[in-house]
Amino acid sequence: MRLSRRHPRYQSLKVRAGLADAARRGLVVPEGLIAQGRGEAFDYLLGERTTPSARRAERLAARWLLRARAPVISVNGNVAALAAREVALLQRAIPRLAVEVNLFHRTPRRAREVARALERAGVRRPLGVRPAARIPHLPSDRARVDAEGILVADVCLVPLEDGDRTEALRRLGKRVISIDLNPLSRTSLAADLPVVDELTRALGGIRQEAVRLAGSASRGPPPRAPAGSLLADALGTIDRRLKREAARSRRRRAPR
Amino acid sequence: MRLSRRHPRYQSLKVRAGLADAARRGLVVPEGLIAQGRGEAFDYLLGERTTPSARRAERLAARWLLRARAPVISVNGNVAALAAREVALLQRAIPRLAVEVNLFHRTPRRAREVARALERAGVRRPLGVRPAARIPHLPSDRARVDAEGILVADVCLVPLEDGDRTEALRRLGKRVISIDLNPLSRTSLAADLPVVDELTRALGGIRQEAVRLAGSASRGPPPRAPAGSLLADALGTIDRRLKREAARSRRRRAPR
Repeated sequence: MRLSRRHPRYQSLKVRAGLADAARRGLVVPEGLIAQGRGEAFDYLLGERTTPSARRAERLAARWLLRARAPVISVNGNVAALAAREVALLQRAIPRLAVEVNLFHRTPRRAREVARALERAGVRRPLGVRPAARIPHLPSDRARVDAEGILVADVCLVPLEDGDRTEALRRLGKRVISIDLNPLSRTSLAADLPVVDELTRALGGIRQEAVRLAGSASRGPPPRAPAGSLLADALGTIDRRLKREAARSRRRRAPR
Repeated sequence: MRLSRRHPRYQSLKVRAGLADAARRGLVVPEGLIAQGRGEAFDYLLGERTTPSARRAERLAARWLLRARAPVISVNGNVAALAAREVALLQRAIPRLAVEVNLFHRTPRRAREVARALERAGVRRPLGVRPAARIPHLPSDRARVDAEGILVADVCLVPLEDGDRTEALRRLGKRVISIDLNPLSRTSLAADLPVVDELTRALGGIRQEAVRLAGSASRGPPPRAPAGSLLADALGTIDRRLKREAARSRRRRAPR
């Protein structure tokens, strides 16, 4: 399908078309397309921009990652398809950041393809292609992690992660930063620091703050995250937007 | 993937897995998967259950369909994949109900596959495989309808329909019943009777009422539908849920 740049939803249609292509190439699985749709709906409800509260969460996330002993970002097929370049730039801004391929629907071939997509975008040494370690209490495939990556990490950035795995990481004592547009998802609810923002905007926001802080962010315990109020803020934004849209649609709709 | 029945999201995971399978078989297109995700987001916000107001809409829908001279249900790839059996049962409860294949992304092969999936589930004589008629003012493929089905119908039940087509049906003077989880979608806004509920729950609800009424629903003009207040109720449900969840999330999260 050809897209006109003047279409009111050009940006989201372009992302959709790109993801559908990635699905045809096998980088993204069907479940990943469904997840994208959920995210789109929440992004629409959040106004398709970074809210002040999400901006705050992204600034905190940059501090957590810079101060971490062993920070890691977990990358699945959707993240690789939508934001491989942003992941590479984030790693450049946070040199200790490990990048680990982490697939819910894992096959050796998909793991290699995701790693290749990351390398092409400039990621150094992606982990997780042949993961030898395991997270306890998760079904087989989804438990596999890299012994140099998530297993030993203290701070995990998990964009578009599933709820079970987020909860499992927290039980292991990791500090978890999620990126998820659904403030009611189990991932957002379980994360220590939930970033409720669209993937590329969130990664860009974290990176900008990391670049700004450069060497100045000291080590030591990270600042506290007001997880509950970050989520409540997102829910409030959605609520206000729905009310505004409802008022608009009442005006528009002529009875017949 | 094996799913545990005890998983907190068993039902929606099962639906998702079924749709992903249908996509692998070509019954569902990538855009249909993304659309499913958008619906899921609204189902989250509605609490993943039929609201009293949606129940009311489903009861009315049953009356409209029973009293119609020529009722039709329009079936796309997602509907066939998710609810072919429910469609067949609905047709059994409403014997005049025609079932028409109606694809946004139409190829002759997909139309045949959708019709076959319906027949396997028990639908009698699905229409729309070789549609010869057209709805005016719609781009080519999406305008095609069956001369024995939608073209001559007085009441159209359109689950998961796109906004342009819903509006076109209304301009033709059809009474349109939509099933769409987004109360602000152009489809919900354009429908005479918007059912804001998940597809299988909605079809099941309409069928139950049709069975209950059996022969007792008289012919003649259908009762009026309070479309505006049905949509307002759905938005109100979401509003209350968002407020409740926001309050809970502020209370719940002890910082760690």
